[in-house]
Amino acid sequence: MKPTLTIVKVGGNIIDDEAKLQSLLISFASISGYKLLVHGGGKMATRLAEQLQIPQQLVDGRRITDSETLKVVTMVYAGWINKSIVAKLNAMGTRSMGVTGADGWIIESHKRIHPFLDFGYVGDVDNVNTSLLHAWLEQGQSIVVAPITQDREGRLLNTNADTIAQELAKALSAHYTTTLIYSFEKKGVLRDLHDESSVIPSIDSETYSALKKENLIHSGMLPKLDNAFTAIAAGVNKVIIGDASDLTQLLNGGAGTHIIH
Amino acid sequence: MKPTLTIVKVGGNIIDDEAKLQSLLISFASISGYKLLVHGGGKMATRLAEQLQIPQQLVDGRRITDSETLKVVTMVYAGWINKSIVAKLNAMGTRSMGVTGADGWIIESHKRIHPFLDFGYVGDVDNVNTSLLHAWLEQGQSIVVAPITQDREGRLLNTNADTIAQELAKALSAHYTTTLIYSFEKKGVLRDLHDESSVIPSIDSETYSALKKENLIHSGMLPKLDNAFTAIAAGVNKVIIGDASDLTQLLNGGAGTHIIH
Repeated sequence: MKPTLTIVKVGGNIIDDEAKLQSLLISFASISGYKLLVHGGGKMATRLAEQLQIPQQLVDGRRITDSETLKVVTMVYAGWINKSIVAKLNAMGTRSMGVTGADGWIIESHKRIHPFLDFGYVGDVDNVNTSLLHAWLEQGQSIVVAPITQDREGRLLNTNADTIAQELAKALSAHYTTTLIYSFEKKGVLRDLHDESSVIPSIDSETYSALKKENLIHSGMLPKLDNAFTAIAAGVNKVIIGDASDLTQLLNGGAGTHIIH
Repeated sequence: MKPTLTIVKVGGNIIDDEAKLQSLLISFASISGYKLLVHGGGKMATRLAEQLQIPQQLVDGRRITDSETLKVVTMVYAGWINKSIVAKLNAMGTRSMGVTGADGWIIESHKRIHPFLDFGYVGDVDNVNTSLLHAWLEQGQSIVVAPITQDREGRLLNTNADTIAQELAKALSAHYTTTLIYSFEKKGVLRDLHDESSVIPSIDSETYSALKKENLIHSGMLPKLDNAFTAIAAGVNKVIIGDASDLTQLLNGGAGTHIIH
């Protein structure tokens, strides 16, 4: 039997809220078995870019990353956020190491190619090198991943954290019975965005297609759900979307939206 | 026989100069055997603090690190500088991982205690956990260390890079025949600060005491030399101080100042 691995993606709004982050980390620390946390960026990068007067441009929720913005996101994600989380987990007794996709070159990526838009220093994932991740987990550590990767030219690339979580879950499910949690500030996938009690308890790919056709999925949820379905189709054991403050219940099956193949 | 390990500390002025850094990394990549690079901060942190209007205070060359300055140095050292170096080394074929003392909690430190001065979030090293470093090196990776550590309360601490290099060299010399190189922008320890040809080829502790008595050591060199003598006294095989652009010659014994027990 394969050992269990829990991968938790934690969204930016949780990162911005010190109390919520602390509570999420306490729940994460209590998870048994191997575990890995992928964090997003939060507002700190946007705020820092503003303070430095670097104009920011977002297309479909994706940040256009020029060279100055790349410095900002690398500093904030791989520097402050990643190391703050690692230090807190260590102090809680959960020995952790923080990495980007560049460290040990665990994630190979390339600069995004798009027919008419230059996203700048934005990466799309080509490959995950699981052997180092596997060895690091075997050493008894939790791994905290910041959403920065690199290409063959040695360029750092800003990379979507939801996608990184999905790619890691897919690749590591060869070694582990893997659960992937997308945790954010909502109770799950909602039928009505303004009603937190309208959580859809489970969605399969057929329901997903139907909901999309009826335009019942909030546009911000689409990439997350696409990642979730990609993961489950590729052999990830469980994929659950829900509230970061319900992490323990999400793992127990008592909350959130469960993605079904 | 113990395997060989080369630890290179690279100073801030080299980090600030893209061409010099690139040349240093090419030389570092060509070193055979296990290797580890410790980098300082450079002017980027000072510049960023200025841009963010965070007042900076230096006492005896040490930065007083308030909470805002801690964010700046963690972002710059552990974020941008560390990951840029790692990505460049990977692209050169030298598989590398970047860490701080918090990652895997490889360096335990405490907030500096001083009779009358509060240095803020500045760390002094208590202990190096060599087993993870050893395992990471055995995995075939070079390790790139940013000068940030953490204490038992989960606080990140700004920590002197020369000291980190010395502490790592000391601790790892139990497993490896270790060479420690302090590389910076000078040819070595100079008799005359303004004459690059006045390099002292070797200094033993007696000569060092004599030179200090005569005030012939530039004050900026004193902590570096103290670290160098601490390392050599504790069993580090070779300690050499010299120009980052002479890295290969420093290792061959053809340049720099050799520290002798």
